[in-house]
Amino acid sequence: MTFRAPVSEYEFLLNNVTGYNEIAATDRFAEAPSDVVSAILNEAGKMCDEVLAPLQRNGDLTPAYLENGVLRTSPGFADGFKAIAEGGWIGMSAPEEHGGMGLPLTVATAVNEMMAGACLSLQLAPLMSQGQIEALEHHASDAIKELYLPKLISGEWSGTMNLTEPQAGSDVGALSSKAEPNGDGTYAVTGQKIYISWGDNDFCENICHLVLARLPDGAPGTKGISLFLVPKFLPDADGNPGKANGLKVVSLEHKMGLHGSPTCVMQYDGATGWLVGKEHGGMAAMFTMMNNARLGVGGQGVGAGEGAYQHALAYALERKQGKTASGFIADHADVRRMLMEMKADLFASRAILLACAQAIDLQTATGEKDWAARAAFLTPIAKAFGTDTGIRVSETGVQVHGGMGFIEETGAAQYYRDVRVTAIYEGTNGIQSMDLVARKMMDGGETAFALIDEIEEQAERARATHPNMAESVWQACESLREATEWLVAQEDMQDRFAGSVPYLRAFARVLGGHYHLAAAMADQGGAREKLARFYITRMLPEHASLLAHAQAGAAGTFALSLDELAG
Amino acid sequence: MTFRAPVSEYEFLLNNVTGYNEIAATDRFAEAPSDVVSAILNEAGKMCDEVLAPLQRNGDLTPAYLENGVLRTSPGFADGFKAIAEGGWIGMSAPEEHGGMGLPLTVATAVNEMMAGACLSLQLAPLMSQGQIEALEHHASDAIKELYLPKLISGEWSGTMNLTEPQAGSDVGALSSKAEPNGDGTYAVTGQKIYISWGDNDFCENICHLVLARLPDGAPGTKGISLFLVPKFLPDADGNPGKANGLKVVSLEHKMGLHGSPTCVMQYDGATGWLVGKEHGGMAAMFTMMNNARLGVGGQGVGAGEGAYQHALAYALERKQGKTASGFIADHADVRRMLMEMKADLFASRAILLACAQAIDLQTATGEKDWAARAAFLTPIAKAFGTDTGIRVSETGVQVHGGMGFIEETGAAQYYRDVRVTAIYEGTNGIQSMDLVARKMMDGGETAFALIDEIEEQAERARATHPNMAESVWQACESLREATEWLVAQEDMQDRFAGSVPYLRAFARVLGGHYHLAAAMADQGGAREKLARFYITRMLPEHASLLAHAQAGAAGTFALSLDELAG
Repeated sequence: MTFRAPVSEYEFLLNNVTGYNEIAATDRFAEAPSDVVSAILNEAGKMCDEVLAPLQRNGDLTPAYLENGVLRTSPGFADGFKAIAEGGWIGMSAPEEHGGMGLPLTVATAVNEMMAGACLSLQLAPLMSQGQIEALEHHASDAIKELYLPKLISGEWSGTMNLTEPQAGSDVGALSSKAEPNGDGTYAVTGQKIYISWGDNDFCENICHLVLARLPDGAPGTKGISLFLVPKFLPDADGNPGKANGLKVVSLEHKMGLHGSPTCVMQYDGATGWLVGKEHGGMAAMFTMMNNARLGVGGQGVGAGEGAYQHALAYALERKQGKTASGFIADHADVRRMLMEMKADLFASRAILLACAQAIDLQTATGEKDWAARAAFLTPIAKAFGTDTGIRVSETGVQVHGGMGFIEETGAAQYYRDVRVTAIYEGTNGIQSMDLVARKMMDGGETAFALIDEIEEQAERARATHPNMAESVWQACESLREATEWLVAQEDMQDRFAGSVPYLRAFARVLGGHYHLAAAMADQGGAREKLARFYITRMLPEHASLLAHAQAGAAGTFALSLDELAG
Repeated sequence: MTFRAPVSEYEFLLNNVTGYNEIAATDRFAEAPSDVVSAILNEAGKMCDEVLAPLQRNGDLTPAYLENGVLRTSPGFADGFKAIAEGGWIGMSAPEEHGGMGLPLTVATAVNEMMAGACLSLQLAPLMSQGQIEALEHHASDAIKELYLPKLISGEWSGTMNLTEPQAGSDVGALSSKAEPNGDGTYAVTGQKIYISWGDNDFCENICHLVLARLPDGAPGTKGISLFLVPKFLPDADGNPGKANGLKVVSLEHKMGLHGSPTCVMQYDGATGWLVGKEHGGMAAMFTMMNNARLGVGGQGVGAGEGAYQHALAYALERKQGKTASGFIADHADVRRMLMEMKADLFASRAILLACAQAIDLQTATGEKDWAARAAFLTPIAKAFGTDTGIRVSETGVQVHGGMGFIEETGAAQYYRDVRVTAIYEGTNGIQSMDLVARKMMDGGETAFALIDEIEEQAERARATHPNMAESVWQACESLREATEWLVAQEDMQDRFAGSVPYLRAFARVLGGHYHLAAAMADQGGAREKLARFYITRMLPEHASLLAHAQAGAAGTFALSLDELAG
C-alpha cells in the first residue's frame, strides 16, 4: 500500500470549484497564483508520499513512551519532523519577516491535510506549532515574537496548547491552574493539564507551552483566564534553551489510537511563564488559536479519510473473491457503493474545508467583515463534517477489507482507531454544532442566509446544463433555508441545541451538493460529473431526515426522565 | 460501572410488542409460558451481572495467547465459561434428550444477547457451541449425536466452525481443504483454516471442529463441499478424549478488538474426521449452523450496544461539565439526543432480533412454511441491523465520554473496538443485504409484502390512539412497499445489489417504527410511548433517503472506471 497525496484533487478544487483565483487576485496573496500553488502542492505531496507515509505504521506499532521521565518518540518521527520543518511546511502561512512563507491559509490547509493522510500522528506535531505561531503573532509582545516565532517556524522548537484539566474540558472556565506575578514581569504557573498533544518530544530543542491559568485577581469562569507562554527550557541571554523550567510530563495516556502522538499529563509547579495578550484576556487569545486549530482538525479528518480510502481501494483492487468483471472485489456492486460513497464524501468535505480556509484568507486580504462572518460560520461545519467524514470513511474502509479489516496487520484498523479522536478534540462535534446554531447565528441568520442564497444562485445557473441535479440541490437548499428560519426563531436555546448536530450535518450535506454541482459543471461528461450525480442522487437526500430532526425541538429529547433513560 | 442485564426490557418486548404468547400457545413450547420465561431471564441476568460482566475488561487487558502451542485464555474466562455451562445456558434450546432445556430459541436469543452485553469475547465461545449443536442435531448420525451432543451441551467440550481459508472468505466455494476416505468410515482432513473463533481454549476437555473440505470427487465450487467433525482429541472407546488428532493452532490473529476471544489459524494435517450430513452436502449443513449463527451475531451487536449504552449513560450521570438542570452532562441537550438515539435504536434492533427468533420458533412448532419464510427473511435484517446498531451505539458511546472516550482506561473504547467485527463475520453485512434482495426475494417479494401488510395493518389500528405516529409509520411502509416492488421487478441482479445495503437499512428503520408504535400503544403516557415518538419523529425519516439510494440502480454506482476511482 502506497499513499499518494491527492494533489490533483486539490488543483481541480481550487481552480474549478472553490474559486481560488479570488485569493490570487488580492494584493496580499498576489505572489501565490494558481501555478505557484500547484508547484508547492506537488512539492509537499512528494514529501508526504516519500517521507511521511512510510512512518504511519511505526507510530502505531511502536508508540511514544516515557523512559525515566524522558519522552521517546516513534521510530523515524524525528526525521519526519525534520523533513517537515526543512521543507518550510510548519511556517507556510506564517509571516515572512519571521521566516515563514506568507502563503494563504488555503495552501497550508491543503498541505496539512495531505500530511495527515500520510501520517496523522506525526502531522499533529506541526499542527500544534502552527496554532501557537498564530496565537503569538496576534497576541504576544514583540520581544516574544522575535525570540519564539523564528524558532517555532524553523522547527527547532515546537508548540503545544494547554487548556484541559480533569474537571475542565468543554467547560474551560472551570479550570483551576494559577499564575502568580513574580515581580519581574514573569509569572509562576502552577497546575495540572491533561490531554496535551505532543506535550514533549525528543527532536526539538525546546517545547513551548501555551497555558491557560488564572491570575490571583481573575474572576471565576472564562472571563478570569489568562494565557501564558511556558517553555520547557528558559531561554538564556542569547535566546538559547537554558535552565529547565518547573514543569514535567507526569504520564502518557493509553489511547485507542494515534499512538505515535504522545498525549501528556503535564504538571506545572511554579513554572516561569510570560503573559500572552492581556490579563484576563486568555480566552480571546485562545480563540485565535482554536479557530484555526478547528479548521486544522477538520483537515485531519479529511486526510485520514483519504488515507483510509486509498488503503481500501488498493485492497479492493488486489483481492479476488467471487466472480466479477475485473476479477477483483472492487467490481462487486456493494463494494463499489462503498468506494463511491467514500470518494463522494471526501470530495464534499474537502471542498468545505477549502471554502472555509479561503474565507479566512479573503478576510485577511480584504478585511471585509462578511468574509470574517463566512469563515466563522464555516469553521464548525468544516471541523465536524471533516472529522465525521474521516470516521465514516475509515469505518467503511474496514468493511471493504472484510475479515482483514479487523486484523491489525493490514493497517485498515489503524485509520479507524486513529481518526476517532478528531471528532472529540478541539471542541467535540457537539460543541461545534452548538457554536453553529448559537454564536454563529447571533446575526439572526444573516451569514447562513447569504450562503444559502449563493447555493441557490449557482443551482439556478446549473439548470441549463444539469437540470435534475440543479433542482435537487435547489430543493435541498430551500429546505435548509426553512430549517434555518425555524432555528433562528427559537428563543429557547435548548430547542436549537437539541437538533444542532443533525442541523450541522444537513448543512454540510447541502454544501456538499453545492460543490459537487460546481464540479459537474466544470467537468461535463467526466468522472467528477458522474461522482456528483452519485452524491446528489443517493447521498444528498439524507438532508431531509436530518432537517426533520433539527426542527423537532427539545421537548421530545428531554421527554424521558434520567431514571427512565436508565430503565 | 456496573452492567445490568436488560431483563425488564425483554419482558416488555415479549409480552407487549412481539407477541410471545403465540409461542407459548403452541404444544411444542407449552412448558415455557411467559412467567417461566421471566424467571429464566432473571436467573440468566443475575449470572450476566455478577459473573460475566466483571470479566469484560480482562479479555481486553489480558488477551488470550499461545504459550508453546498451548492456548491460555484471559483471567477468569474459565470460571465464566463454567458458570455459563452449569447454568445450562449453552443448551437452552437444545433437545432435552441430550441434556438441553428445550426452550424456544427466542429465550436463548435473549439470554445470548444479555451475555454478549456482559462480556462479548467470552460469550462467543458458547455461541459457537450452540451453532455446532444445532448442526449436529439436524445433520449428524445418531452415533455422533449421542456421543457429542451431551458433551457440547454440558460444556465439557466446545465447538467451532471452520469455513474460511485465505483465498475463500465470502466465496466459500473457493476453499481447497481436502478430505480423503480412510477406508474405515472416517476421513483424513488436510488444509489451513483462518479466522477460527475460539479455535482452542484451556477450559474444555475437547474442542470439536466442524470443518468444510472437499472430497476427492467433489466438484469445484460450493456443490462439492462436505462437512466433517474433527475433534482435537479422538474419543476413546468410552467416549473420553484420547489420542491427539492431527491438527494444531498455528497462530492467533492480532485484532482491533475482541482480544479475549482467540481467533486462530488452524492447520489440519490428515486429521481424522467424521462426515456430517451427506457427501457434497456440506453447504446445506453449514447453512443450518450459519442461519442461527447470523441471528446470534445480530444479538451480539445489540448486546454490545446495550453494554456501551449503559456505560455511556453511567458516565453522563456522574460527569459534571457546564451548567445543567441536574448538574450532570446527561442534561445537555446534545448528550440527551445521543442517549435517546442509542436507546431508541437498541429498542428497535432488539425487537427485530426477537421477531426473527420467534418466527424460527413458530416454524419449529407449527411446521408452517410461512414462518420459515418469515424467519429466513428477517435473519439478514436482524444480523445486519443488530450489528450496525451495536457499532453506531458504541461509536456514540465514545462521543458521550468526550476525551475520556478515546482513553482506553474507561472501557468505552473497548465496546467500539470489540463490536466492529460483528458487521464482518458470519457473512459481512453486504452479504446479508445481497441475500435479502436476491435469495429472500426469489418468491417475488411475497414474504416481504406479507410483512409490509402487517406493518400497515397495525398502523391502521394505531390511528385511533396515535394518529400522527401511525400516519408516519404507514407512509414510511408505503414507501418501502414501492421500493420493494421496484426491487423485485429488476431482472439484472446488479441493480438490486447496488442498493441492497440501503434497502436493508430502510427495511429495518420501518420495522423499528412498527415495533416502537406497538410499544406506544402498550404504554400510553409512559416512557416507551415517548421513546417511540422520538424514534418515529426523528429517526424513522431516514428511510426516505435510504430508499432513494436503494432504487437508484447499478449504472451510477459503476459510473466511474477503476482508474477513475483511483484518480
